[in-house]
Amino acid sequence: MTDKLVLHEYSASGNCYKVRLTAALLGVPLERREYDIMKGETRTSEFLQKVNANGRIPVLEVDGRFIPESNAACYFVADGSNLIPTERFDHADMLRWMFWEQYNHEPNIATLRFWMRWVGVDNLTDGQRLQMSGKRQAGIAALKLMEEHLRGREWFVGTSMSLADICLFAYTHVAGDAEFQLQQYPRIVEWIERIKGQPRYVPMDS
Amino acid sequence: MTDKLVLHEYSASGNCYKVRLTAALLGVPLERREYDIMKGETRTSEFLQKVNANGRIPVLEVDGRFIPESNAACYFVADGSNLIPTERFDHADMLRWMFWEQYNHEPNIATLRFWMRWVGVDNLTDGQRLQMSGKRQAGIAALKLMEEHLRGREWFVGTSMSLADICLFAYTHVAGDAEFQLQQYPRIVEWIERIKGQPRYVPMDS
Repeated sequence: MTDKLVLHEYSASGNCYKVRLTAALLGVPLERREYDIMKGETRTSEFLQKVNANGRIPVLEVDGRFIPESNAACYFVADGSNLIPTERFDHADMLRWMFWEQYNHEPNIATLRFWMRWVGVDNLTDGQRLQMSGKRQAGIAALKLMEEHLRGREWFVGTSMSLADICLFAYTHVAGDAEFQLQQYPRIVEWIERIKGQPRYVPMDS
Repeated sequence: MTDKLVLHEYSASGNCYKVRLTAALLGVPLERREYDIMKGETRTSEFLQKVNANGRIPVLEVDGRFIPESNAACYFVADGSNLIPTERFDHADMLRWMFWEQYNHEPNIATLRFWMRWVGVDNLTDGQRLQMSGKRQAGIAALKLMEEHLRGREWFVGTSMSLADICLFAYTHVAGDAEFQLQQYPRIVEWIERIKGQPRYVPMDS
């Protein structure tokens, strides 16, 4: 790949880490540009006009064009690599887990982590605070579903690591930040260690 | 394609309609199996064990294997067709809109539609009712972002219809059910008519 890739990110975000981890595992060089989302740096008119009208990170810049949405950015980075199965069912199954992550996992586990560790429970709105128990239950349901899926499996799709694993790993391995009890999910714990043991693995805070 | 495809669905769901519309536009035969989600028919132990442990529809059955998540099911149906761009950036850009739809559009516009038209505002929990104005604002922001993106464009990605259009169309064209004012978004209205004018288009209630 000859395209120059720039990741517009907030490095504490698991969504941004997904893209960095994908690139690291594949040995793809990635420039990084940091924005402080707590200071609104992704809501400036310049960011909204140039990088992402949705005001969110990560955004992958490819030769001056922009790909928002973490899982789409991971796909661009990994396109053509062994992180993306080519068999038709497995490919759709990988996307299934990536869509599930964004709908059923991230809005619960990542949002609770953000509220509890970055915003602070005392600073939440009433509406947010009322959502906490629902997000707690939904986050536990997501972890249980993952634990059950990993019964007799090493990876989420087929028999090797794919983007499904990377995208699920990002917020799962730090779910303890939001007081989810990962030790209750032994297959998830093993799978986390399996990913951490991959050549060229990089931790979230690197 | 020789695989037998069965769509497990609740036909009033826009997420299920996405899969039906994709198949119809491509002329792909699809068997349909209806579940009444209002009666909990996707939460039975049989459904959870056999079809989808997540208890949700749609699920696409492919020769006895199952693909949950509407956008992944659409991808399986359309794989190899002209609804999926092959150019690397455009392909990732299509996925970007599909992930955006599931994260920024569906949880706002589709959820408000479901709450207002199926559940009924009087039957919502306090937590749900407190979320309504946030979802209203986020839904409007999603429609504005779509309207702006369609400036000078006929389709969301590249110069022809892709799965991004189909997946965004499903809940956008019925956003009026949740009292969003589509006439305020003239480019969206034109794009909706463009999709309705496609050969083999099928409406949601077919």
